[in-house]
Amino acid sequence: MAHRPVGRAGVQLTSGLLHDWQQRNRSVSLPLALRQLESAGNLDNLRLAITGTSTGTGTSTGIGASVSADLAEQYRGPAFMDSDLYKTLEAVSWELGRAAAPELAAFAAEATSLLETAQQADGYLNSYIQATGGRRYARLASSHELYCAGHLIQAAVAASRTFDGGQLLQVARRFADHLADSFLGRQAGLDGHPIVETALVELYRETGEPDYLRLASQFVEQRGHGLIGDSGFGSRYLQDQQPVRESATEAGHAVRALYLESGIVDVAVETGDAGLLAASAARWDDMVTTKTALTGGNGSRHSGEAFGDAFELPPDRAYNETCAAIASFQWSWRLLLATGDGRYADLMERVLYNGFAAALSADGRRFFYVNPLQRRDDHFEDDDPGRRRQWFSCACCPPNIMRLIASLDHYIASVAGDVLYVHHLTGSRITGRLPQGTLGLDITTGYPWTGGAELRVDSAPDAKCALAVRVPGWAGEVAVSVNGQRLDAGPDAHGYLVIRRCWRPGDVLIWSTDIRPRLTYPDRRIDAVRGTAAVERGPLVYCFEQADQPDGTSVEDLALDQPAALSERAGTLPGIGPTVTIEAAAQRLRPTSHRGIPFFPEPDVATAGSPVAAVAIPYFQWDNRDGRAMRVWLPLTGPAGPATTEHPAAGRDAPPTDIE
Amino acid sequence: MAHRPVGRAGVQLTSGLLHDWQQRNRSVSLPLALRQLESAGNLDNLRLAITGTSTGTGTSTGIGASVSADLAEQYRGPAFMDSDLYKTLEAVSWELGRAAAPELAAFAAEATSLLETAQQADGYLNSYIQATGGRRYARLASSHELYCAGHLIQAAVAASRTFDGGQLLQVARRFADHLADSFLGRQAGLDGHPIVETALVELYRETGEPDYLRLASQFVEQRGHGLIGDSGFGSRYLQDQQPVRESATEAGHAVRALYLESGIVDVAVETGDAGLLAASAARWDDMVTTKTALTGGNGSRHSGEAFGDAFELPPDRAYNETCAAIASFQWSWRLLLATGDGRYADLMERVLYNGFAAALSADGRRFFYVNPLQRRDDHFEDDDPGRRRQWFSCACCPPNIMRLIASLDHYIASVAGDVLYVHHLTGSRITGRLPQGTLGLDITTGYPWTGGAELRVDSAPDAKCALAVRVPGWAGEVAVSVNGQRLDAGPDAHGYLVIRRCWRPGDVLIWSTDIRPRLTYPDRRIDAVRGTAAVERGPLVYCFEQADQPDGTSVEDLALDQPAALSERAGTLPGIGPTVTIEAAAQRLRPTSHRGIPFFPEPDVATAGSPVAAVAIPYFQWDNRDGRAMRVWLPLTGPAGPATTEHPAAGRDAPPTDIE
Repeated sequence: MAHRPVGRAGVQLTSGLLHDWQQRNRSVSLPLALRQLESAGNLDNLRLAITGTSTGTGTSTGIGASVSADLAEQYRGPAFMDSDLYKTLEAVSWELGRAAAPELAAFAAEATSLLETAQQADGYLNSYIQATGGRRYARLASSHELYCAGHLIQAAVAASRTFDGGQLLQVARRFADHLADSFLGRQAGLDGHPIVETALVELYRETGEPDYLRLASQFVEQRGHGLIGDSGFGSRYLQDQQPVRESATEAGHAVRALYLESGIVDVAVETGDAGLLAASAARWDDMVTTKTALTGGNGSRHSGEAFGDAFELPPDRAYNETCAAIASFQWSWRLLLATGDGRYADLMERVLYNGFAAALSADGRRFFYVNPLQRRDDHFEDDDPGRRRQWFSCACCPPNIMRLIASLDHYIASVAGDVLYVHHLTGSRITGRLPQGTLGLDITTGYPWTGGAELRVDSAPDAKCALAVRVPGWAGEVAVSVNGQRLDAGPDAHGYLVIRRCWRPGDVLIWSTDIRPRLTYPDRRIDAVRGTAAVERGPLVYCFEQADQPDGTSVEDLALDQPAALSERAGTLPGIGPTVTIEAAAQRLRPTSHRGIPFFPEPDVATAGSPVAAVAIPYFQWDNRDGRAMRVWLPLTGPAGPATTEHPAAGRDAPPTDIE
Repeated sequence: MAHRPVGRAGVQLTSGLLHDWQQRNRSVSLPLALRQLESAGNLDNLRLAITGTSTGTGTSTGIGASVSADLAEQYRGPAFMDSDLYKTLEAVSWELGRAAAPELAAFAAEATSLLETAQQADGYLNSYIQATGGRRYARLASSHELYCAGHLIQAAVAASRTFDGGQLLQVARRFADHLADSFLGRQAGLDGHPIVETALVELYRETGEPDYLRLASQFVEQRGHGLIGDSGFGSRYLQDQQPVRESATEAGHAVRALYLESGIVDVAVETGDAGLLAASAARWDDMVTTKTALTGGNGSRHSGEAFGDAFELPPDRAYNETCAAIASFQWSWRLLLATGDGRYADLMERVLYNGFAAALSADGRRFFYVNPLQRRDDHFEDDDPGRRRQWFSCACCPPNIMRLIASLDHYIASVAGDVLYVHHLTGSRITGRLPQGTLGLDITTGYPWTGGAELRVDSAPDAKCALAVRVPGWAGEVAVSVNGQRLDAGPDAHGYLVIRRCWRPGDVLIWSTDIRPRLTYPDRRIDAVRGTAAVERGPLVYCFEQADQPDGTSVEDLALDQPAALSERAGTLPGIGPTVTIEAAAQRLRPTSHRGIPFFPEPDVATAGSPVAAVAIPYFQWDNRDGRAMRVWLPLTGPAGPATTEHPAAGRDAPPTDIE
């Protein structure tokens, strides 16, 4: 059964990690973004576009543009600079919907006014084309014009749902109407970078205008027929090599591929197209099985910021762009709503607490664009500074992080029939409107640091209805009790504990599971991490960072014992703040001094060493100290065998375990 | 003691693999190149340059060039198209020096005449600049003008030493004089792509003109000071981030880095600069230890065609450009001559029979640009077709292969003092001019297919002198006998068996070593191939290609037994020709059908399977059948342990073994 979001008003984050991230986002990251947009030129570009239009050198026809060379030279940054502003406006909108914030409100008002003024008479709006005098839609393979339009639409929908009286929505609608006039029913006009597809469906949902859905559907169906042309990286980079109903695996530029999937699912759901939905879901299965890192990261290659071959998952050379994590999260959410299957929430969780969360520094001021699972000392990349940065010349990631964090409350719960589903346990207030009435919950939990949660009912219909809580894929047994009475219930086929009863205000459901650290081993088909293991705890992937190792032991000389005793300690680390560290029994191998060709007639077995307690921290907290070496996967000593901590069953493939 | 080459006349290849490669190169590959240079536009570009010059639209001042737009549009290919022609001319020159060949001679005459005509009055010559009206030396970071000049000089030196009466050498000298006029003593003018450095030293050796050496030295010393500017990939890509006397490791674009090293060694040797030589030799050691694949390939990254971090040696994503193998080979040869150390010859051998040889198809008609050690089925690369091609839009590799093969005889032997050194055993006639007189050898061997060689003396001075034969780094004991008498001699500190006696015509030295297949294991610091082994036999690296596996067993489901029995069989394979295949005792693992996230709480140990004889062929012979999956490194089953075949000691690090 398809799920409905509980809506923006249906969840408030009240405490815990996600709540704290939202607060940091609001008070630290977003103000930083406002300054960056001014200093990097995003707002100036719009001012240039206005000048171009007002002096008559701009064009509203797109033909024979004759903007002065002077204006064109003043344009700063890549062609898609507007999208950074739009993503920031979306984040600001969600924040203004939550509480007043004068600085954010002033920015939104100014930006909205700029956009209104810059918009041309026929609805077209793009600072790059308007300021540089480029011809509209002439180079859609690389111009990002519809991509920018998509982010404008998403910002406008957010503004419309929160603080704005409809001012920005009108700008977006005028542009969307212009897009429909320009493209609907024609076979030319696909953007090299998807996002307008999902944005147009959102605008359709917001306004009811069927042309927006039709245009989204057209864009989705036209893709994969070689209509886009060449951006210099080939058709696969643009997902233009195969129709979306036929493609079986993710390929090309990861962010583009995954944004497109959100549009595909949106179109499929709104048009009731089961075949289209199934094609997307099959690719999701393939991606999770063959092209997703332990952290949930996607995109194994720097070249083309692209997906690699099946099981090509190098920890050191993975690209795992932050925006790909965001796109994956949004796609999984849509599949979760469409199907109710908890596997999608599992991946959302893996991405959220690992591959996505690592993109932001502990202080909320610095950002990763690339998220590998290993870094060597003396590491060098052409296209990755190796450490987080305040901003980027191509700044797609930072404001994208901000809009996701500002909207995290949207992804916590949903409703299907008479069931209120809680997908992600976090300190929150949840209100689900069920057919019988409203079921309200107040959730208190230390999750993901702890394995327990208290769900207190604070309002309930006067009839039976159900509350469903996900059993995470990593978890073994989950124990639940209601008002102190343990329930004998196992997860349903979708991975949820569904408790149907006549709920009463004051009822308390206690949820708990074993969150002790565990070792995780890779599928034998992943060549790049053969002979290694990683440490996980609950939904958190851990990593061994140089700063934490005892006596300066190099992380390159660590090998995990087999079996490996794991112990944990909650505490606070300088630069990081609250965390839970894990000590793993390991060997400190003799540093190798061999010089000469590094291939030998006998195995270079990693057994000789002295015992050492290797220290791991959550992956998302790395690179908040000295920026030295880091590894998620550590080599194993001796023959492979089980670790000493008890392991829960493997994911959903294992038979469900009965709840005591 | 520094070595002298025996010179072009000092070695003739008479039989065996290298001889057969030269024959194939002459009869198949080179004629193909002549047609490609015509059809790809390399010659037409020169004709355009002549038109531009003759109609007065070309410029001899480089200022205010005003070539017609029409001409500029007719130019085809990248800016360095001339270099493809020069490399081919170099190969043709070596061939014409060996024996008459009317087709090759006609091409050389036509091309030389074209170059003479296209050359401008002041000596400048570059079809791209002349045809497109670009300003000379204005964009040296990317224009490849000095790079093309370097290859012209190399071709001219080859022509001068073989068939040409000095016609092409005059063209090269005029250009070199122009370069000296333009750059000598100034601090502006470094090419983004080295090769002119080593070429200028060669021209100095050929002509005695000291300005050529001075200019080479200046280019070497100016590099690394940020003088080149930006080609869009940063200073490291261009080896401009650190002076060559300070840099400790190879970085950036691999071909550029390694061509530069040849120039550095050449300058160091000709100027007697021990510090400069030591810096280059130290980087060679570092490269061999940390950045060289088992096949001798260099350049771990597609991004920037670049060296990666230390021990970043992925088999699947290695770039290992063919031109980098050639550059490595040429650099090692120069260090070998400078030092006499057999480790350089070891690497030359590893590169020659593996990373380099694989670049050419068995029929000599198709070429690899990228040489990974693993290919998955359904593999995709943006920048690599995955299979050999007839030619490339950037066709640097094919004619580079041809010039190296055409000159392989140069690299077989050298002379130092009264010792004739044989570095590479292959069917050949070798003549070494020693102080006492001429020592002549006729070598008959099946090497690298067999471990035996017969060296028959056919002329000798009437005094004591020495013959030295390399003991390969992979070999254990080497037995030698002279006229049936076994000698009790071990290799010297440089890895050579040196036999000093009064040699007589008719003396026969028999050389033999165990060439049975062996397993090779990686250094534990190489993350990407942990838990695997490869098969080698003599100097040949082997690979498991899908076409050879019994009952269609997927190479992805093979795991080598530990210990693994290895057996060999000489034979002929369709598409490949003569070869020695190796069967390795292995397990055929159950194909994994797991769907879902590929990470588990228990090791996914590769033990369950049925015995199978996995079949390996020499790596250089892969991709001559169906182009399906290939692996050099196979996972190991069970605990690590030695294989059943006896292993020779590991490289030069092991103490030398006495010869019986």
